[in-house]
Amino acid sequence: MNQSSTDVASRLTEPAAMVEAYLDRFLTERTLPQNLANAMKYAVLGPGKRMRPILVVRCCEAVGGKAEDALPPAAAIEMIHAFSLVHDDLPAMDDDDLRRGRPTLHKHSNEAMAILAGDGLMGLAFELIVTRVADSKLAMSLIEELAVGTNDMVAGQVYDTLQDFDDSLAPLDRLKLIHRHKTGALLRASCRMGAMCGGADEQTLANVTAYGDAIGLMFQVVDDVLDVTQTTEHLGKTAGKDIEQDKLTYPAVMGLKESKQQIESLVAAADKALSGFGESAKPLRELCDYLANRTR
Amino acid sequence: MNQSSTDVASRLTEPAAMVEAYLDRFLTERTLPQNLANAMKYAVLGPGKRMRPILVVRCCEAVGGKAEDALPPAAAIEMIHAFSLVHDDLPAMDDDDLRRGRPTLHKHSNEAMAILAGDGLMGLAFELIVTRVADSKLAMSLIEELAVGTNDMVAGQVYDTLQDFDDSLAPLDRLKLIHRHKTGALLRASCRMGAMCGGADEQTLANVTAYGDAIGLMFQVVDDVLDVTQTTEHLGKTAGKDIEQDKLTYPAVMGLKESKQQIESLVAAADKALSGFGESAKPLRELCDYLANRTR
Repeated sequence: MNQSSTDVASRLTEPAAMVEAYLDRFLTERTLPQNLANAMKYAVLGPGKRMRPILVVRCCEAVGGKAEDALPPAAAIEMIHAFSLVHDDLPAMDDDDLRRGRPTLHKHSNEAMAILAGDGLMGLAFELIVTRVADSKLAMSLIEELAVGTNDMVAGQVYDTLQDFDDSLAPLDRLKLIHRHKTGALLRASCRMGAMCGGADEQTLANVTAYGDAIGLMFQVVDDVLDVTQTTEHLGKTAGKDIEQDKLTYPAVMGLKESKQQIESLVAAADKALSGFGESAKPLRELCDYLANRTR
Repeated sequence: MNQSSTDVASRLTEPAAMVEAYLDRFLTERTLPQNLANAMKYAVLGPGKRMRPILVVRCCEAVGGKAEDALPPAAAIEMIHAFSLVHDDLPAMDDDDLRRGRPTLHKHSNEAMAILAGDGLMGLAFELIVTRVADSKLAMSLIEELAVGTNDMVAGQVYDTLQDFDDSLAPLDRLKLIHRHKTGALLRASCRMGAMCGGADEQTLANVTAYGDAIGLMFQVVDDVLDVTQTTEHLGKTAGKDIEQDKLTYPAVMGLKESKQQIESLVAAADKALSGFGESAKPLRELCDYLANRTR
């Protein structure tokens, strides 16, 4: 990574520290069994890209809002993301021992705690918004985004792991259906919640949503491409696992070259969605390029 | 059961059919993978006492509201209850094969589906309220009750199964801490949400809360007593399991006779909380007697 991309990376992740501090405080202040609070903190405050909270904060700023106003949904969506990882990693699901270079929660603690800490992280995400956002109309909009995003993500997990498709659905359509739900829904919700906190009007919200949809799909294509091209050490999780498990992935369905072209098309779509935005959307454009650069 | 107690039982459960129809419609209308929707319906619409939704509806009516107004939180809290049973039954938790006389969801379907259907039921409970309650102030109050109740319940599960107590806490205090969270929190939330839907003022809400706290504790003492005194066939789940697992229960801590006395004290407390209520609270008084009668 050259100097300039390191700068971009560090600028991109600026909101992460704010969100982590906010989350840590929330989980410390909420009365909880100590072992449960520790397990939740292990899951949500361990190393991570904080992609979703960064999107919430940056989309809020892009439409003219302040980062502080976006902290409740930014923290809440990271809790939802963390819950989903904890449950996905369980032996009955993906059975992963390693996540972000550390033991997964059921390895670090135990399986019962991983189930319960995941449940608690989901429930507390809703509690956080409802108790921390004073404007009840805004809070309702945020909770609807968070709930629909969460439920679509769970549906995406079912599509992905317990495939029950219409036989006439082509592999690429299955793949899109899976990822629009599994990863797309929360990334879309992240962008929309940020824009809502920033007071976006309807057209601006639609543009931010288009950006979120492009980024959401791109994120998954990039992930699939990296699984093929990088090593376990680079990824912080077991590489090549998709191929080993004969999973439906973009490189498997459309080839590696076409997957990379797909990423470039999505970069263009994201840029187009932000074309009416000025300097305030620069971090969103950089984030998009940064993601794409990982595969370039 | 004599004729009169059968009448009471059937009157008590009148709201159950309304709530079940509402839940069935909600889960049918929401776009979901078919296997996930089926798993959720199996979990939430199978045989059950519907205690929580009945409390929501009856508390709404007790303060002068209409049953219809209470359906969103009544359905939502039954989804939360169902999610908690599905996850509690998992092999890594209580490892139960039988629930309400039928195979548990992970036996009927599989473990991954049980984890995901549980997650989905929790998330959809919040989506249901946020999309079905138009008054945003009321919706926010309901979501706060539901979220806090859910999270306290999860904390209660942790206290119960992964005990991590202050060593100075006496057995009875541990037991109360567990059950105030594990079962009490949702029963309290049920009563409060119902009263909120019925437009209760602050004092009325406080009285309904006191009723809910008494009923909530009583419910657990009754459950513990029945585990000792009834057979598996009667219970629809494995009887005597508490003793077998050397669990902290009311009969184990204070003895069977004292546990039954405790139930009578709680009946008196519930009646007292409702003393200012007229005929509209009759179903709540009957519900309380009905519960106590199971152990008399």
